[in-house]
Amino acid sequence: MASWSWGGREHVGTISADGREATPLALRDASLGTLPLIQALARGESLPSPSGARLPVEVLTLRAPLPRPLRSLFCIGRNYRAHASELAGTVFRESMPQSDPWPIVFGKLGECVIGPRDVVRLPSPATSVQIDYESELAVVIGRGGRDIPRSRAMDHVFGYTVVNDVTARDVQMRHQQWELGKSFDTFCPMGPWIVTADELDGRATRVRGWVNGALRQDGQTKDMIFDIPTLIETCSRGITLYPGDVIATGTPAGVGMGQTPPQWLKSGDVVRIEVDGVGVIENPFE
Amino acid sequence: MASWSWGGREHVGTISADGREATPLALRDASLGTLPLIQALARGESLPSPSGARLPVEVLTLRAPLPRPLRSLFCIGRNYRAHASELAGTVFRESMPQSDPWPIVFGKLGECVIGPRDVVRLPSPATSVQIDYESELAVVIGRGGRDIPRSRAMDHVFGYTVVNDVTARDVQMRHQQWELGKSFDTFCPMGPWIVTADELDGRATRVRGWVNGALRQDGQTKDMIFDIPTLIETCSRGITLYPGDVIATGTPAGVGMGQTPPQWLKSGDVVRIEVDGVGVIENPFE
Repeated sequence: MASWSWGGREHVGTISADGREATPLALRDASLGTLPLIQALARGESLPSPSGARLPVEVLTLRAPLPRPLRSLFCIGRNYRAHASELAGTVFRESMPQSDPWPIVFGKLGECVIGPRDVVRLPSPATSVQIDYESELAVVIGRGGRDIPRSRAMDHVFGYTVVNDVTARDVQMRHQQWELGKSFDTFCPMGPWIVTADELDGRATRVRGWVNGALRQDGQTKDMIFDIPTLIETCSRGITLYPGDVIATGTPAGVGMGQTPPQWLKSGDVVRIEVDGVGVIENPFE
Repeated sequence: MASWSWGGREHVGTISADGREATPLALRDASLGTLPLIQALARGESLPSPSGARLPVEVLTLRAPLPRPLRSLFCIGRNYRAHASELAGTVFRESMPQSDPWPIVFGKLGECVIGPRDVVRLPSPATSVQIDYESELAVVIGRGGRDIPRSRAMDHVFGYTVVNDVTARDVQMRHQQWELGKSFDTFCPMGPWIVTADELDGRATRVRGWVNGALRQDGQTKDMIFDIPTLIETCSRGITLYPGDVIATGTPAGVGMGQTPPQWLKSGDVVRIEVDGVGVIENPFE
């Protein structure tokens, strides 16, 4: 399910299995992307009918499938063991736990979401000089709920998308809590669309990230320290999850901070992220 | 400016200076409380005209002035020195900084906001057994902006309200990042209304909190480690603030965790918070 601009208007629709054709759906207001559809499906309603001809995806300007999520994304920190190891050699070493009894969960403001090909704006050097990428599989919640047990958590997954959890490492560190360093305007590329849970099992797919064409991250979601059902159980404990909520599941090893020496993003860089079975986002940094 | 239910409908309006009378304003949809008014004023529009007779506040059911904030509250950690000291004797000691070069800023999901007299629902003991209160002055942003300098920050303050930043300490700690332990359903009593910046200077007022009638917290906002202009500058660095955004400015000494031994909230407790020049919120815990 996708959101796009074409012919001077915003649309929401479905994408063919090969990712090449888009079919718009009849929706009065497409400004919130797929969110109203996810909400309607969660209420037991059916999808609106197709409205208009199929179009080749290549002529569309894809927007984020959730251009304005209903609230902050739930983001997971240090959820791949190899990534946890690379951070153990950085300024994060003092906050490294001896083991991992509970996931790290923090918020990323939804207003920083941009489309799968949009430009990420680097802040001024006075604000941050340590901009980093994080390639991630994101889970989109369908049916809401609170205190969802692991055993039933997958029933609450609407689908999957790709996010780049762009991070200002210096800002992330200096405030101890991570929200500010994660939430700069334009710091959440998302897309290219949502693949629904009947088409993909996010528990066993591959997440890769490239900077300027060089492969930096290559992880398997089955290697997550806390798997998707555990993350849903954790985020919903005492907190009602709503249709359209997004859980960004954490990033594999290979972030810029983990390079020797660290490699920060600079103007002109391009970060490409692919999740097998979902698709590709590719964003220039300026 | 307040939000209330009366006669089976939701209303938004103004409150007389003595806090006794409410005047409803003509607003088509009052479900979001004062948010559309704050947004309209920020666009340079004027307040809608009064609609209907003045009413005594005591007959109304006050709602939170922002019953569904547009996004997570920006919350400030350890912003009063005496409170920082009391935490130095707790499990937080390992993350205590030697000095305070930057404020701690974390998110609290807006969906947990409840009214100034509403019931806070204690989670099951399996979820948390360490529920605590935090009495706070909250700043409501009027005109939005990004990279707002301290020197002009007060021009962006719409007004002030009171929040109880209710916290599950065990959950806050175990996930390292604080959002989950701060965001349980019903964990953000807010009210009783917003006092606008022309009526109060939040930089010099008094914040008190009582549990079952016993005074526990008594602080002066002039004793904040990071003052309100600094907090606005910090939160807006690289991140656009919007009209209606809320910054909860941190809590004075005297939280339950700081007692010897710690005193956690239990069913039947009542927490009352007063900010001089704003008003009182008083919430039972069940």
